[in-house]
Amino acid sequence: MIIPVNMKDSKYDIVLERGTLKKANQYIGDHNKALIVTDSGVPEIYAQTVANAVGNASIFVFEQGEASKNFDVYKSICQKLLHKNFTRKDCVIAVGGGVCGDMAGFAAATYMRGIAFYNIPTTVLSQVDSSIGGKTAIDLDSIKNIIGAFYQPKAVIIDPDVLDTLPKRQISNGLAESIKMGITSDESLFELFESDDYMDNIEAIIEKSLLVKRSVVQKDEKESGLRKVLNFGHTIGHAIESSAGLNKLYHGECVALGILPMCGENIRERVKAALSKAGLVTSYDYDKNSVYEALTHDKKTDGTKVTLVKSNKIGSFYFEEVETESLKRYLL
Amino acid sequence: MIIPVNMKDSKYDIVLERGTLKKANQYIGDHNKALIVTDSGVPEIYAQTVANAVGNASIFVFEQGEASKNFDVYKSICQKLLHKNFTRKDCVIAVGGGVCGDMAGFAAATYMRGIAFYNIPTTVLSQVDSSIGGKTAIDLDSIKNIIGAFYQPKAVIIDPDVLDTLPKRQISNGLAESIKMGITSDESLFELFESDDYMDNIEAIIEKSLLVKRSVVQKDEKESGLRKVLNFGHTIGHAIESSAGLNKLYHGECVALGILPMCGENIRERVKAALSKAGLVTSYDYDKNSVYEALTHDKKTDGTKVTLVKSNKIGSFYFEEVETESLKRYLL
Repeated sequence: MIIPVNMKDSKYDIVLERGTLKKANQYIGDHNKALIVTDSGVPEIYAQTVANAVGNASIFVFEQGEASKNFDVYKSICQKLLHKNFTRKDCVIAVGGGVCGDMAGFAAATYMRGIAFYNIPTTVLSQVDSSIGGKTAIDLDSIKNIIGAFYQPKAVIIDPDVLDTLPKRQISNGLAESIKMGITSDESLFELFESDDYMDNIEAIIEKSLLVKRSVVQKDEKESGLRKVLNFGHTIGHAIESSAGLNKLYHGECVALGILPMCGENIRERVKAALSKAGLVTSYDYDKNSVYEALTHDKKTDGTKVTLVKSNKIGSFYFEEVETESLKRYLL
Repeated sequence: MIIPVNMKDSKYDIVLERGTLKKANQYIGDHNKALIVTDSGVPEIYAQTVANAVGNASIFVFEQGEASKNFDVYKSICQKLLHKNFTRKDCVIAVGGGVCGDMAGFAAATYMRGIAFYNIPTTVLSQVDSSIGGKTAIDLDSIKNIIGAFYQPKAVIIDPDVLDTLPKRQISNGLAESIKMGITSDESLFELFESDDYMDNIEAIIEKSLLVKRSVVQKDEKESGLRKVLNFGHTIGHAIESSAGLNKLYHGECVALGILPMCGENIRERVKAALSKAGLVTSYDYDKNSVYEALTHDKKTDGTKVTLVKSNKIGSFYFEEVETESLKRYLL
């Protein structure tokens, strides 16, 4: 299946198809050479399969985990491109999860002020969410995604077969973003998580999630308005991740914890049940003070006010602007 | 004088006016706070004057010189923004030459994926050339501008009074870019350099240079075609700078050395005379092999071919695509 994305300055396709990894070259343009960026947590065979398909590719492997999303690794990728004499005719291909796509994308966005970038996400999280929308970034001093660029890929290639090697917790991690999109924008997507085994519906979940995300990012490329809906659960989620959760909880688990306080009482139990069924935590004993401090650092805060995304009906959302101080009462 | 610039996604004004530094706030939008980025070679009073004008500003000073245009200083600027809790409502203001504008601009382009950027160039080079066009960058492993972003300022504020404190050699350094634009695009600009004292015409030189540059960058924002005309003299100039010239010759001096081989025999003496009058070198004993090696690394090479900009009539230019190997014969 091809899902075309139309951004202001660029159009690209999301390819969603089982077994597409080994024919990735069909969706990758004409380049002299490619740098495949992957991490130590991604089965080597995936990057190798893509390398074999596209030809004339080098592979750059960094250590798995959010801690690698830093200036040093970013600089190393840039150096690799430089030392291999990459020009604007060449390309960068990310094969991995969100960390990999964010960092490879930022390197591609800034090397020679931008060379072609392809994203081949290999986790649920990156397949349903982070691989589209054109947000690339690295972290700085424990603040996530504080340095980055809006930069669109030339194509996103999604092969659901790669999820077979993913640990269950990693799958749950990604599903948090799908549940998020279901709650705010598509009840039929949310309902897929109320069935007995969500893995039976994984392709439909990916597809419906991509359609929600595409719709939002096409309307608001640079996060100036509507796109804030995608932050549903993230304001508090990021703060938990920055303070209490880093290296303990996964991103999606933090988002799950951030979603619940943003749901009206009338839907909270239904949401809680869906999150639990998807293997996500619905409570966690974090330090409220340090999470609150991280909240005031979070980039979504805008001076002393912050825009929250809330829902009191599955499939819909509303924005509410609140004082930063009042956020404390949402920390369950 | 206001020179409006219309780029695809943004419009901004270039303000060219004596004494405008102390009323910079008139051209700077409404922000909560500002970070002024300057270097140790810029008289402190300039950054201070701007800080007083805009209010609620911090000043970040880095060590003068191209060697500072690196990942470490870039990271330090980002950290300063982060630790001072800058949000998307705040701004970065460069007060200095090209190195300052490039690096502050890149930090502004990438902090939170882009916050407002203002450029107040204080050298001839940055006033006539580098402050407009939206190219921001840092160097990596001695390769100039290899990492960066296209990012437009919100305004460029030019006060010719600040040139009074500039050493003569620095003035000549900047004039190389004006002479370049005169040769390729505006004979009346070139003729200003054939008069007795170019400083009598400095405002006209700045204005005419800005008009040439504006015309080019408006037509070709991302350096995909016409904008290559601005590389006149730069293919060889950059290579001299990367290898022989770094820390010895100024950028404009390298450009002057790169301009001459790109001029037809019929205009070469006239160009040489103008360059000399402007205080620029017209010959230099560089190592041809190392310059040639730098040429093959230069980002303007495109695989094995390179597009040269040449002129055989003042006020006009043409493109010529040549094999990279053939560049050796242009090294005078």
